[in-house]
Amino acid sequence: MRIGFIGLGRMGGGMARSLIKAGHEVTVWNRARDKAEGLGREGARIAAGLSELAGCDPVITMVADDAATEALVLGADGLVAVMRPGSTHVAMSTISVALSERLSRAHAQAKQGYVAAPVFGRPESAAAAKLFVVVAAPAREIDKCRPAFDAIGQRTFVVSESPADANLVKLSGNFMIGSVIEALGETVALMHKAGIDPGRYLEIMTNTLFAAPVYKTYGDLIAAEKYQPAGFKAPLGLKDIGLVLAAAGAQRVPMPVASLIRDRLIGLIAQEGEDIDWSAIALIAARNAGL
Amino acid sequence: MRIGFIGLGRMGGGMARSLIKAGHEVTVWNRARDKAEGLGREGARIAAGLSELAGCDPVITMVADDAATEALVLGADGLVAVMRPGSTHVAMSTISVALSERLSRAHAQAKQGYVAAPVFGRPESAAAAKLFVVVAAPAREIDKCRPAFDAIGQRTFVVSESPADANLVKLSGNFMIGSVIEALGETVALMHKAGIDPGRYLEIMTNTLFAAPVYKTYGDLIAAEKYQPAGFKAPLGLKDIGLVLAAAGAQRVPMPVASLIRDRLIGLIAQEGEDIDWSAIALIAARNAGL
Amino acid sequence: MRIGFIGLGRMGGGMARSLIKAGHEVTVWNRARDKAEGLGREGARIAAGLSELAGCDPVITMVADDAATEALVLGADGLVAVMRPGSTHVAMSTISVALSERLSRAHAQAKQGYVAAPVFGRPESAAAAKLFVVVAAPAREIDKCRPAFDAIGQRTFVVSESPADANLVKLSGNFMIGSVIEALGETVALMHKAGIDPGRYLEIMTNTLFAAPVYKTYGDLIAAEKYQPAGFKAPLGLKDIGLVLAAAGAQRVPMPVASLIRDRLIGLIAQEGEDIDWSAIALIAARNAGL
Amino acid sequence: MRIGFIGLGRMGGGMARSLIKAGHEVTVWNRARDKAEGLGREGARIAAGLSELAGCDPVITMVADDAATEALVLGADGLVAVMRPGSTHVAMSTISVALSERLSRAHAQAKQGYVAAPVFGRPESAAAAKLFVVVAAPAREIDKCRPAFDAIGQRTFVVSESPADANLVKLSGNFMIGSVIEALGETVALMHKAGIDPGRYLEIMTNTLFAAPVYKTYGDLIAAEKYQPAGFKAPLGLKDIGLVLAAAGAQRVPMPVASLIRDRLIGLIAQEGEDIDWSAIALIAARNAGL
Repeated sequence: MRIGFIGLGRMGGGMARSLIKAGHEVTVWNRARDKAEGLGREGARIAAGLSELAGCDPVITMVADDAATEALVLGADGLVAVMRPGSTHVAMSTISVALSERLSRAHAQAKQGYVAAPVFGRPESAAAAKLFVVVAAPAREIDKCRPAFDAIGQRTFVVSESPADANLVKLSGNFMIGSVIEALGETVALMHKAGIDPGRYLEIMTNTLFAAPVYKTYGDLIAAEKYQPAGFKAPLGLKDIGLVLAAAGAQRVPMPVASLIRDRLIGLIAQEGEDIDWSAIALIAARNAGL
Repeated sequence: MRIGFIGLGRMGGGMARSLIKAGHEVTVWNRARDKAEGLGREGARIAAGLSELAGCDPVITMVADDAATEALVLGADGLVAVMRPGSTHVAMSTISVALSERLSRAHAQAKQGYVAAPVFGRPESAAAAKLFVVVAAPAREIDKCRPAFDAIGQRTFVVSESPADANLVKLSGNFMIGSVIEALGETVALMHKAGIDPGRYLEIMTNTLFAAPVYKTYGDLIAAEKYQPAGFKAPLGLKDIGLVLAAAGAQRVPMPVASLIRDRLIGLIAQEGEDIDWSAIALIAARNAGL
Repeated sequence: MRIGFIGLGRMGGGMARSLIKAGHEVTVWNRARDKAEGLGREGARIAAGLSELAGCDPVITMVADDAATEALVLGADGLVAVMRPGSTHVAMSTISVALSERLSRAHAQAKQGYVAAPVFGRPESAAAAKLFVVVAAPAREIDKCRPAFDAIGQRTFVVSESPADANLVKLSGNFMIGSVIEALGETVALMHKAGIDPGRYLEIMTNTLFAAPVYKTYGDLIAAEKYQPAGFKAPLGLKDIGLVLAAAGAQRVPMPVASLIRDRLIGLIAQEGEDIDWSAIALIAARNAGL
Repeated sequence: MRIGFIGLGRMGGGMARSLIKAGHEVTVWNRARDKAEGLGREGARIAAGLSELAGCDPVITMVADDAATEALVLGADGLVAVMRPGSTHVAMSTISVALSERLSRAHAQAKQGYVAAPVFGRPESAAAAKLFVVVAAPAREIDKCRPAFDAIGQRTFVVSESPADANLVKLSGNFMIGSVIEALGETVALMHKAGIDPGRYLEIMTNTLFAAPVYKTYGDLIAAEKYQPAGFKAPLGLKDIGLVLAAAGAQRVPMPVASLIRDRLIGLIAQEGEDIDWSAIALIAARNAGL
């Protein structure tokens, strides 16, 4: 496939690379050109502007947030303007339900396809093509893009035909990860103060009822207090939890644990700045315990 | 081994049965005699009183809570009084850190061994000898009791030489299970209101980052809203979360998610009574969302 | 003074009436014309459009929320466009810190004055000219508008020279009111279940340490469970608590009680709809206790 | 009246002094004798042991907590044992509902009267005889003790005929004070970070809707960050909030704000030790905001 790829950050870079490795013809565009040039050396074509992605189908976006996605897609000379009718935009960033719905309407009006396909996984998984892809769109759109998903991830899950549903599932998943980090942070602080080795505690947990990747990944980070360099920065976590709360508020669903995680992340950024992994909310739990 | 076993409830009954099946000579005692008689038909000897357990080593207790354990062990004609010097008491109930420390001291004074060995698993796992056993005690005590643990569980984890440490790990584990239930309850309510099939949502979660038994077990219960008959009743859950909070309070560790779960369980019991599974805090999350 | 007044809802209607009674020449505009006509019979001039407010100074706005204020002030043919240089806009609605900052910049660019002057008080206080006015703006702007504040309120407080500061103080005050309602709701539920007369309880509280208007007003509503007709509807409360959380998030200040109140309000609206007083979060507290 | 008075701490000392000033014949007993001697110089008789209080009626207790009260009243040679039939014990300490019920039963069995009469007010109010007394007991018992209440407090409130009801009202009141401190802590942190003078903010609040003593007292402490010397130490606050939560748990009433305050107090003690005023939970709010 001739695939357009926009957004070569820590996640997007690995994903684009996986597409190239899988044999796709990939044209990349990135705001900061140096990252595009890196991909160029690995076989990507480098677009000088969005209009050069006009011949690609699908065009994948993987950028930081709602604002970046909105500018890129709905702005003057944005994707809606430059993409050909019949071609498909696959939005893989973690964006809000509300924006996903707007993108859906805008592309439909321009006779373009729109697929929401956010992913689970940290940069290491992106580099190893081990992401989980969560997709929602009409079946024919998904079928068309499946080779791209296969190249990027270890497994693809279809939620429904309504693109924004995939975004809600993804955001909820990030909330659930946040809840794991918070629970680990609270119990690890307790083990510390009780004089029990946190590593031993986590070993027991992750070999019994909590034998899931998320407990191993974050348990290790928390036991080692290794919060830098950040795999997923606190402000991004705060953004996502904020999007969960916004979606839940719109649906009139109280989510007290999400509220609690939001408060933790705000406190974390206030105390430690923006360049720290979001799992460092465990550090705040530790500090609040006087550690 | 000649094993004494006290407490033949939903958990204890299965555990005693596993010991019999593994070829141990098991003498059982239960407050309500009818349950003991059931085990009698499967090969257990039935003690008429605690004093008839004097010849057993170890003696295992698996009763409801701190009060029952305290009466059984420290009361007049209790285990401390009737057990022989050199024999060992294995407390497998989920009891408080503070009581475990008291039992430890009382047995030491009576020249008896004391092992804390709480388990993870619901009644189905007890029946299938698939429990996880979390043990803390001096090594020689653990070695002595290991055949019993092997008969009851699928795996045994040693925490430390201080018995109460095992109780704290167990309680923390129950807190972590509670945090999973709460997070699932919040997100499943959100999916419901957003019109996304909760089963589909849970399938995605439990096949990706949350591929752990606890998510599957509780996810199924919550998606099916199957809260009765209760595998683990809400008042027991409340008791355990209360013990976590007591231990954390004593160690000066704030645990806001534990506090939140406690409030949920209190609300659940207030609204639905005492005969409901503790996972029904998800029902409260749903109700608070107007479902 | 020749005062323009926009927004004749339950609060604005009383405020405009107070200005007329104090002898000011008041020109009113309201989206729904019937309310303007009511004021017309009491002596107000009725503007057919915003441009007819051009000769007024100051122009006061008291509309529902950020969206309404933004459209009114910054929209095509909005206040910034129609007001004369040197005249002053007094924004008395409870709006966000961020919008207040934008209004400040827009008016400055148009050489117009801008005063943020949100008020404390429910509709009864507005009708009785007993509001508290919280003002921030350069001193000369405040001096110019003081006769209007004197007519509307029982007392005016100056925060600082930066208009948005008044908005933050007002929002924080609404948060504090929310925290009072929540605390009352929790304790009144406790009294109910313990068989203690809530009225007696509240009498003790409001005659001792809590002898403040807010406890009397809301204590009475909660004890009587009189949540309709709404003096301040739950969605408006949710809007305000949301604005507090947005401002606090921007300043990196965790506010767990505000988060909790937000969740309560969402639950309230989910269960009872939008036409209920925000103090009915006490009803949710009662329900969660099984009442 | 011949009044026995036990417990001459910061609160009790002032109360006993008020009784002496009002002309009562006061016999004091205190575990640490030096404090009793201080009162002796002001006219009190000093008892060498509890048995010397046998001729007093009523006997007032004002000691630290449940444990101290229980030992004093129910212990061997405690008040129940030494007081004469027909005489009355007035328990003014802030104790648990459960203990108050036990004291009630024990005194009834010994044909003694029992009045629960906890007070609102900090040491300054005790010294100035400005406490508020919250009483519950059968009317004739209250009538008998009223002169003592009049000497100690500025006003007495009768809750009901069931002594423990007064304890629940008192505990709930302390919870409400805690909720005020927490709300002030959160908003003062917000003002600080937004560059608004907290003193100005508090002045506005306490002159409008929050014109109650509790807001002035604690607002001043928080704005000045004056948490030492402690008027009411954090561990005592934690004890009281714990008793509220215990009573609410027994009644099946979730109290999320009380849970939150408990977590704050635990964190405060973990970070700052035990010799700090409980209002310093505002310090934790500030720290969590990076201040």
